[in-house]
Amino acid sequence: MPVSARGDSKVLVGVDYYPEQWPRARWPIDAKLMADAGVRVVRVGEFAWSEFEPAPGRYAFAWLDDALQLLRQHDISVVLGTPTATPPAWLIQRHPEILPVDPDGVRVGFGGRRHYCPTRAVYRRYAGEIVTSLADHYREHGAVIGWQIDNEFACHRGGCFCEECRTTFQRWLQRRYGSLEHLNETWGTAFWSQTYTAWEQIPLPARTVAVHNPALRLDFQRFVSDAYTEFQDLQIEILRTRCPRHFITTNLMGLFDELDYFKLSRPLDFVAWDNYPGYHGPADPVRTAMAHDLTRSLKHRKFWVMEQQAGPTAWEGGVDRSPPPGLLRLWTWQAVAHGAEAVIYFRWRTATQGAEQFWHGILDHDGRPRRRYEEVARTAAELAGLELPPDAVPETPVAIVLSYDDRWAWKIQPQHAAATFDRRVGDWYRMFRDYGIGVEFVAPGEPLRGYRVAILPSLFMLNDATAHQAEEFTRTGGLLIVGPRTGVKDETSRVRDVPPPGPLSELLGVEVDEYDAIGTDDAATVDLTLPGLPSLTGRSTIWSDVLGPRSADVVAVYRDQYYAGRPAATLQMAGRGAALYVGGFWESGLLDGVVRWALRQQDLDAAVVRRSNAHDVEAVVWRSAAARYLFLLNHGDRSASLGLAGQWAELATQQPQSETVSLQPFAVKLFVAR
Amino acid sequence: MPVSARGDSKVLVGVDYYPEQWPRARWPIDAKLMADAGVRVVRVGEFAWSEFEPAPGRYAFAWLDDALQLLRQHDISVVLGTPTATPPAWLIQRHPEILPVDPDGVRVGFGGRRHYCPTRAVYRRYAGEIVTSLADHYREHGAVIGWQIDNEFACHRGGCFCEECRTTFQRWLQRRYGSLEHLNETWGTAFWSQTYTAWEQIPLPARTVAVHNPALRLDFQRFVSDAYTEFQDLQIEILRTRCPRHFITTNLMGLFDELDYFKLSRPLDFVAWDNYPGYHGPADPVRTAMAHDLTRSLKHRKFWVMEQQAGPTAWEGGVDRSPPPGLLRLWTWQAVAHGAEAVIYFRWRTATQGAEQFWHGILDHDGRPRRRYEEVARTAAELAGLELPPDAVPETPVAIVLSYDDRWAWKIQPQHAAATFDRRVGDWYRMFRDYGIGVEFVAPGEPLRGYRVAILPSLFMLNDATAHQAEEFTRTGGLLIVGPRTGVKDETSRVRDVPPPGPLSELLGVEVDEYDAIGTDDAATVDLTLPGLPSLTGRSTIWSDVLGPRSADVVAVYRDQYYAGRPAATLQMAGRGAALYVGGFWESGLLDGVVRWALRQQDLDAAVVRRSNAHDVEAVVWRSAAARYLFLLNHGDRSASLGLAGQWAELATQQPQSETVSLQPFAVKLFVAR
Amino acid sequence: MPVSARGDSKVLVGVDYYPEQWPRARWPIDAKLMADAGVRVVRVGEFAWSEFEPAPGRYAFAWLDDALQLLRQHDISVVLGTPTATPPAWLIQRHPEILPVDPDGVRVGFGGRRHYCPTRAVYRRYAGEIVTSLADHYREHGAVIGWQIDNEFACHRGGCFCEECRTTFQRWLQRRYGSLEHLNETWGTAFWSQTYTAWEQIPLPARTVAVHNPALRLDFQRFVSDAYTEFQDLQIEILRTRCPRHFITTNLMGLFDELDYFKLSRPLDFVAWDNYPGYHGPADPVRTAMAHDLTRSLKHRKFWVMEQQAGPTAWEGGVDRSPPPGLLRLWTWQAVAHGAEAVIYFRWRTATQGAEQFWHGILDHDGRPRRRYEEVARTAAELAGLELPPDAVPETPVAIVLSYDDRWAWKIQPQHAAATFDRRVGDWYRMFRDYGIGVEFVAPGEPLRGYRVAILPSLFMLNDATAHQAEEFTRTGGLLIVGPRTGVKDETSRVRDVPPPGPLSELLGVEVDEYDAIGTDDAATVDLTLPGLPSLTGRSTIWSDVLGPRSADVVAVYRDQYYAGRPAATLQMAGRGAALYVGGFWESGLLDGVVRWALRQQDLDAAVVRRSNAHDVEAVVWRSAAARYLFLLNHGDRSASLGLAGQWAELATQQPQSETVSLQPFAVKLFVAR
Ligand SMILES: [Zn+2]
Ligand SMILES: [Zn+2]
Ligand SMILES: [Zn+2]
Repeated sequence: MPVSARGDSKVLVGVDYYPEQWPRARWPIDAKLMADAGVRVVRVGEFAWSEFEPAPGRYAFAWLDDALQLLRQHDISVVLGTPTATPPAWLIQRHPEILPVDPDGVRVGFGGRRHYCPTRAVYRRYAGEIVTSLADHYREHGAVIGWQIDNEFACHRGGCFCEECRTTFQRWLQRRYGSLEHLNETWGTAFWSQTYTAWEQIPLPARTVAVHNPALRLDFQRFVSDAYTEFQDLQIEILRTRCPRHFITTNLMGLFDELDYFKLSRPLDFVAWDNYPGYHGPADPVRTAMAHDLTRSLKHRKFWVMEQQAGPTAWEGGVDRSPPPGLLRLWTWQAVAHGAEAVIYFRWRTATQGAEQFWHGILDHDGRPRRRYEEVARTAAELAGLELPPDAVPETPVAIVLSYDDRWAWKIQPQHAAATFDRRVGDWYRMFRDYGIGVEFVAPGEPLRGYRVAILPSLFMLNDATAHQAEEFTRTGGLLIVGPRTGVKDETSRVRDVPPPGPLSELLGVEVDEYDAIGTDDAATVDLTLPGLPSLTGRSTIWSDVLGPRSADVVAVYRDQYYAGRPAATLQMAGRGAALYVGGFWESGLLDGVVRWALRQQDLDAAVVRRSNAHDVEAVVWRSAAARYLFLLNHGDRSASLGLAGQWAELATQQPQSETVSLQPFAVKLFVAR
Repeated sequence: MPVSARGDSKVLVGVDYYPEQWPRARWPIDAKLMADAGVRVVRVGEFAWSEFEPAPGRYAFAWLDDALQLLRQHDISVVLGTPTATPPAWLIQRHPEILPVDPDGVRVGFGGRRHYCPTRAVYRRYAGEIVTSLADHYREHGAVIGWQIDNEFACHRGGCFCEECRTTFQRWLQRRYGSLEHLNETWGTAFWSQTYTAWEQIPLPARTVAVHNPALRLDFQRFVSDAYTEFQDLQIEILRTRCPRHFITTNLMGLFDELDYFKLSRPLDFVAWDNYPGYHGPADPVRTAMAHDLTRSLKHRKFWVMEQQAGPTAWEGGVDRSPPPGLLRLWTWQAVAHGAEAVIYFRWRTATQGAEQFWHGILDHDGRPRRRYEEVARTAAELAGLELPPDAVPETPVAIVLSYDDRWAWKIQPQHAAATFDRRVGDWYRMFRDYGIGVEFVAPGEPLRGYRVAILPSLFMLNDATAHQAEEFTRTGGLLIVGPRTGVKDETSRVRDVPPPGPLSELLGVEVDEYDAIGTDDAATVDLTLPGLPSLTGRSTIWSDVLGPRSADVVAVYRDQYYAGRPAATLQMAGRGAALYVGGFWESGLLDGVVRWALRQQDLDAAVVRRSNAHDVEAVVWRSAAARYLFLLNHGDRSASLGLAGQWAELATQQPQSETVSLQPFAVKLFVAR
Repeated sequence: MPVSARGDSKVLVGVDYYPEQWPRARWPIDAKLMADAGVRVVRVGEFAWSEFEPAPGRYAFAWLDDALQLLRQHDISVVLGTPTATPPAWLIQRHPEILPVDPDGVRVGFGGRRHYCPTRAVYRRYAGEIVTSLADHYREHGAVIGWQIDNEFACHRGGCFCEECRTTFQRWLQRRYGSLEHLNETWGTAFWSQTYTAWEQIPLPARTVAVHNPALRLDFQRFVSDAYTEFQDLQIEILRTRCPRHFITTNLMGLFDELDYFKLSRPLDFVAWDNYPGYHGPADPVRTAMAHDLTRSLKHRKFWVMEQQAGPTAWEGGVDRSPPPGLLRLWTWQAVAHGAEAVIYFRWRTATQGAEQFWHGILDHDGRPRRRYEEVARTAAELAGLELPPDAVPETPVAIVLSYDDRWAWKIQPQHAAATFDRRVGDWYRMFRDYGIGVEFVAPGEPLRGYRVAILPSLFMLNDATAHQAEEFTRTGGLLIVGPRTGVKDETSRVRDVPPPGPLSELLGVEVDEYDAIGTDDAATVDLTLPGLPSLTGRSTIWSDVLGPRSADVVAVYRDQYYAGRPAATLQMAGRGAALYVGGFWESGLLDGVVRWALRQQDLDAAVVRRSNAHDVEAVVWRSAAARYLFLLNHGDRSASLGLAGQWAELATQQPQSETVSLQPFAVKLFVAR
């Protein structure tokens, strides 16, 4: 039974550990220090292929056996990483064709990590063998509880452009399309004379003159994603057979978009991700929250943080700022509030050698416990004292539909440089979070039932199934909110021959008559009048849809630009629900109006009612059968106070909380309402 | 007899059309909508090779026959594009060596367009065959009136760096120089030990350590230009033989500078160009005007706009802003005012597939006529009502000498990063345009006779012939204006061993004593005193020539820098004319002084006398034997008014115009004076 | 006996000359003009391989013999350059494998310069042959006094990534480490599974996925540096044998950091460098001074400027500003003040052909003497009148320890983007220069004896020997100043397992408890209280060390950030000296406090006591047995005045100087005190 599902709602605290990088004499000291700090689980081995198999077919597990023995003595469980992110030097020497090829045809050399072509058959064979050996060796080991497959799939690079990838892609297309006629038709190869008359003619989207067909680029992205998923599945199959009692996961990368994380997650027991909020610039707690929520949404269940930042990070450009006292604790609590059931700090001790010498762990290079160790230990103790009912989960009345196909299509043809993921998706996410309203991400095709509000945020490439689901959702009482550029394309990347929002036009009662990529140097002024709400005026940037309402009511109108007086948003009642179309990227004042209206319309309980200057405070609500819980997290380095709705008591003390709550810098508070 | 020369001065309105990208059922609807909008000509086929020749030697023209049949029923003429910009997939599979090679040695892949090496013999053979087949098939077709060769030669990339290009370049050099001694001497290969002792040693200017010899780079650019010209000539020869009654043109790209457009235009009946004023940033109407005028100047006759922007454009970075109501009309009239005898909108309907999915046509993806269709139709109707006398042409008393050799030399060795084409050439162009004075561009070696003012704007690489012509022009009454860095080099890229302006020193009566690349962070102050004009003080940036007058009068002096008190410009009377040397890049106040003085000196009639706040209004004067015409075009989105000189009447109403004329946003007015 | 050591303290003035680029008829004119200007030495031949050896094994020296004959008639000595920076076209045709390979595997083409792989055996053979032939021909020539090897080693590129470099690197590693076990241990290849089991597996740090091991990168940089040194030594050996009476040097590039200049300089008689203060942006006289001083420090003896800027420079982006009158003279005097015993202007006459057409010499393209010629001649005359005692040398009581290993380690892993060389090293240099206190750079391992102050400025990779030397220096009365990030790593690039400053912790009595890469967007406020100095408050950016004093006194404290109240700098008396640790990059106000304190502490005589607005004035002090000399150089284009300490008289007039001295723009003054 996987740990993560054992019904124990206690949060696991752990560390990422590399015994192979330290002298054996240090190991017992490490194990003792870990245990003292409350570490209950350790991840090991994910880059240790050359230690496990120093020469082809010669395996060496004794060193790890010894290390695990020490951990076990301190009652620490172990997650084993399969080491396939780093094929060893001897393997590359024997099969240099394993190395991936760049879009400009250069075969990339040994010396970093993730230096393998994901489709290469010979590599899959070697990877299968090392995983098999590991599984056979550790299947009955008392400390081992589960597996992490590979490490951060597709990090640093997406696709490979080698000859084997090309022929594999061609076969993938053959399976997908059956005939060249179908492929030519679907891709529209009549454009620029690209009709293929043999499968072998189809190129990879490598360096070309001008640009590639977006349909080919989209299919290549799908193919790359499938290749990694296939490579993962091959390992899962080996592990499932040999280690039926172990759980299987992999460590994802939050908002990373090279792979379809919904598909990749499917065969896993639960997912994990690597969380570095302070890497490369100041932390954005809302993005981190969104990454947590997306990760949780992949399987709609709790998840692990497999690598949690534990000190200053550093990559090629220099060292990032040090997390001040309290921030490691805050990040840990944030993870827990969003549904992490384990938080594993990366890494135990800072490496003194190798490419990540200044990517700091809990301990510094010298291995001495200092303030970060103390903070982790304190946090672990706090979490050990936390026990919410087993059925308590984040309350998420709002669904945001998100598809990787769509993210790829947008990357291939960004409709505007400023229409980033944060603007398309994050803006909506942020507005609801501001009221402590939880958001769940939903893949196209997943049911929307049970949500009160569903957002289709610039869902550029909307398929008919999603449209259908949106309709059913609305007619049965949901509030549907649709952003600009939704429904422009079908899932083959073809622009629909009806105006946007395409298959949603009837439900929304509106068509886009024309549009203006207004950008961010200029802005359109919009007057918004939602039923029961005072009028609001604000700015709309990046994109202006000029709407032609068919049957919907106009709820917003442009005040300037050549489309002054024409509709900017419409609302249509549909069945027991309502459908709102918002034709631009609106500034927060207008979006706030939409959200306030939506909360009232759908009878949602906002935990937060006034924030004034408390924008750094995050509020996360959980519910169980018996109670509701409220996490307040102050991400700011100043004190903050905000107003709460409802009757809350502090969980620890059971003292009732007054209407206004104050939080110290980086403070965490947990309330309950019954 | 080519349409464009048939004496009918009516402007043709047309569209670029891709029947192969749409269902047959749609074709009749398209043809009807076109005819309704006043479309009289359609360009087709320029990317349709894979449709024309689906397999080697198997031709398929029936589909186009059917489409043309429908157009003919609506009395729409057809220009056929030769499809050589897009070799089909089967050809690349058969001959991958057709694909071009990058300067870093990477052979670029199939998947975009223009993926061919311009010198490759095997490609020329295949290209000749498809053109021959097309010519044979359509030579007698009733709708076909002419040909467009290929599409936007050298777009996306200039030269190819393959082995065949290298040997072809070596042979080209052998023809040019005869002996290695001559080449070594001309290139100055004694510098950095580059003396060649075998033709095979000569490299292409591919990736090297440090930088290549500028003389080699210049010759390579000439070679590339010649290669495209040769490739075009090969097609022209086929078409001339087979279709003697059809005109032949190609679509150029305005101010694009990779190819010598003068040479490329020579064998064509007339030239055409593709005009996208709103692509990638706000339109600059003066640059567009300059591009129109340069295109007209290539053959000193009217031209076509083969692709005229018809909606929002989009390339990789996102969609550009939508042209507001009135702008398509204005752009069309601007083209006409500068001498376009046909305006073909790109494209009829926005593609739903392929790399240009968001490069919008007249119709949107859904094919429904909306405001852009209405505006095009209205404009076509206006133009159908316009009939100026057949001998009416733009009045261009000012010549700007421009050579592609010189543009290349400047690109290879920019004398200053801020000395862009717009600063070197555009500044002069702008100043004359401000008074409604027309400019013609003139190639070195072309006669200057008939112009009143000739400008040599930073003609870095001035050959002796041009110098000679400038002298004759001046002595016979012309006013010659010479900008900084003129005459520095000879046509082999060798710096002359006399100071600038080299062969013009005697005519101008001045030598450059020294110079200072002052840049744009600093500026020199200049006092300008032209005969009969009050003194002016202004700033000179980028470059300061410090002049040593031999026989000229000093008309400008530096007020600061270490050359304070020394001459910045000189004037010398020469024969019946005058020669002015301007030793810097002057701000508009000073340049305006020069132009006002020049107008008076050369007795030129400025149509515009006061513009105050009307800088967005363009004025273009035409003349015929019997009358003068004045186009006023307001490119601004605000009303504007300006003062006119002379007695003008509105052409449509024959109402006399008062001295001050007002224009609505994007308005066009046409006046006549007899 | 090398010229540079002949006891004649007169400064040599010379020019870089390329007779092969000019007609023979011009040669006598050039020689005459040179002699008239006071030119006493000429460098020739360093790019003339194709002239010396027009075909394999066929040598042609007669042309140079003739040119040298003319120079000799004017009593001008000659330095011969070996032409190995430019292998000729015939050699590349014969052995294209000589061409270097880029990190992405592209073999770079012929056409520039320095197009050779530094390890390639076949190239070394050809290079040896041409050098041998030159040496044999000129060994007894009356004009030739010495040799310059190659030209600007490693300019444009550092390492080559060809197969021969790879195998040579592997052999180099084998010699260095003996066994793979040792290499694996030293590099820490357990990180990311990079354990090597065969030497052939070891890659070059070419394009990879993610990043290479920093230890590998460091060793590669050492290998590249060694390869050039070896290539130089091969030439030196030939020349020493054949031309025992000639001196041997090479032209370095100041602050350039691709090669270990200490090692490269060792076998040379003296070093030379190429000084272009006005290249690519306004001159920074302090950086130029630092480059002079570093060059002098390489062998701790006087040096040559082999190329001194003589006019506007220009590379690919355009022409740089022209040095105004007085600046060439000033630059020359600056070189002399820092210990140049020869100043050779680059170049005699501006090339009319080749890649450096606008890199201006003394004469313009037309060969006419103008103001730059006059200024050079005037300066040469001044220098001919200057004769300081033979034992007079710059007075340098301050040592800055600088190692190329360390510079490379920093480049490989910059600790912060803003911690540039100028911030790490230049900040200290600048502060002492402001008081006219001379600085000598010292390599790790060189004795510190004799200096009063020694600075270890962010010596990231500090070896034990240097630490030991620092200790001895301090205990015997020196003042040691240590900057942040010193002692982090050992010389194998491994982070020490003790906290910084590692081996200096005991001497300094302090350990770094933690650190914060605060950057430049924020800053920490520091209160500094040095003994006997009023308190100062200022800003510290980029990096904050939070110190844990063991036995040292706290002399600076943070006032804000999360480490408010904690130590920012410490001072410990040690033996007869003192050791100061400064834990951040401090703004100049704080650094000035440190320097003023250091001067008093170590009893140093600052020549300059007040500068108020005279920050452009440089002061350089020399001393001989009998006297001290003071050079004042006003680098500003405004007059300046500053206060002097001590009794100085103007050298030329012997007039006593009052306390306050005034300098015209670009003025040079020389004083003496006895
Ligand atoms: Zn591959
Ligand atoms: Zn080619
Ligand atoms: Zn090499």
